[in-house]
Amino acid sequence: MKKVGIVFFDQFTDIDVVMHWDLLNRVRQYCGLADFEVKLLGTASAHVSMSGLCIPATGSLAEIKDADAVLFASGRGTRSLIQNSAYLQQLKSYLDPQRQLIAAQCSGSLLLGAIGLLRHVNVSAYPPILELLLSYGAQPVQKSFVVDRQFATASGCLAAPQLSGWLIQQLVSEQAATQVLESAAPLEDLLRPVASHAV
Amino acid sequence: MKKVGIVFFDQFTDIDVVMHWDLLNRVRQYCGLADFEVKLLGTASAHVSMSGLCIPATGSLAEIKDADAVLFASGRGTRSLIQNSAYLQQLKSYLDPQRQLIAAQCSGSLLLGAIGLLRHVNVSAYPPILELLLSYGAQPVQKSFVVDRQFATASGCLAAPQLSGWLIQQLVSEQAATQVLESAAPLEDLLRPVASHAV
Repeated sequence: MKKVGIVFFDQFTDIDVVMHWDLLNRVRQYCGLADFEVKLLGTASAHVSMSGLCIPATGSLAEIKDADAVLFASGRGTRSLIQNSAYLQQLKSYLDPQRQLIAAQCSGSLLLGAIGLLRHVNVSAYPPILELLLSYGAQPVQKSFVVDRQFATASGCLAAPQLSGWLIQQLVSEQAATQVLESAAPLEDLLRPVASHAV
Repeated sequence: MKKVGIVFFDQFTDIDVVMHWDLLNRVRQYCGLADFEVKLLGTASAHVSMSGLCIPATGSLAEIKDADAVLFASGRGTRSLIQNSAYLQQLKSYLDPQRQLIAAQCSGSLLLGAIGLLRHVNVSAYPPILELLLSYGAQPVQKSFVVDRQFATASGCLAAPQLSGWLIQQLVSEQAATQVLESAAPLEDLLRPVASHAV
């Protein structure tokens, strides 16, 4: 059994939660792997997005402990959470970077920075959070998607599939990642001759 | 005031609802246009996605009547709805193709086909629904995004931004569409020199 926890909160960016949630759940739906679990982990029974969408949590923050991979969503809500020492203390006590893959979308990186996990770590440089990333000792890189050991970060909502794809590849297989990403690709990408897929 | 209704239902595709919801709501958030309203229209107080996500509706199907643009979500749920004559009758009575922009993501086109709106209309040819589209008299085209008069269709979840972008361009302006799409673009797309943006 592989478990992924998506950590979300009030004032999350809608796409950055639901894109990952949907793509990761496709491992079961499209690859026939029943033992792949995705949970939305929060501090309340539901959280409300920046656009007013109310999405139920399917687990508590404490379930971070049980996850093989933890993915931090983005959104305006991160700005108050990086000041919330009780919240950060919880993250710190539940996360285990020695054992887990740790991923963040856009401003989700701030939470990792605030608990000291990004010192000397290459991270995707989302412009609105560049200064804060530097203040946390991170090494921002001008790429949509960056992997540094167990840490993976993506910038721009539409870079989310690269991050989900990487998690699936690491936790399941390259083939499963390809299957899932193709199931969401724009039609024309699927119609291109195989040779240009590789480009 | 411009109003967009996103029609969704049980067994919807998560990305195909939330991507449009988020991007369309950014017209208010990123372009400062307060008089742009987006509603999630359903037949119940909430609908559950193919991945088990429960999302509240923010309006009833009858509010299709008030919309300047109506966007049909996709998902397995369309397959039972195209057999549900009471549901189709409601869509038919509320939609006004003379006045409204009518858009569909992937299998959302089936609902338009089932109420007879796609005869001799060019539509994006999402492979799993190709035969049904033909049976409705539609003219499938092998493109991710197709516009034919007031009808716009997109295939593949990640073609959704093209469809949302078109709706924003038609209802607001080209500039607003660009602003919204750039706010969700992968970081590297934003860093490319302007000349290659145009390519």
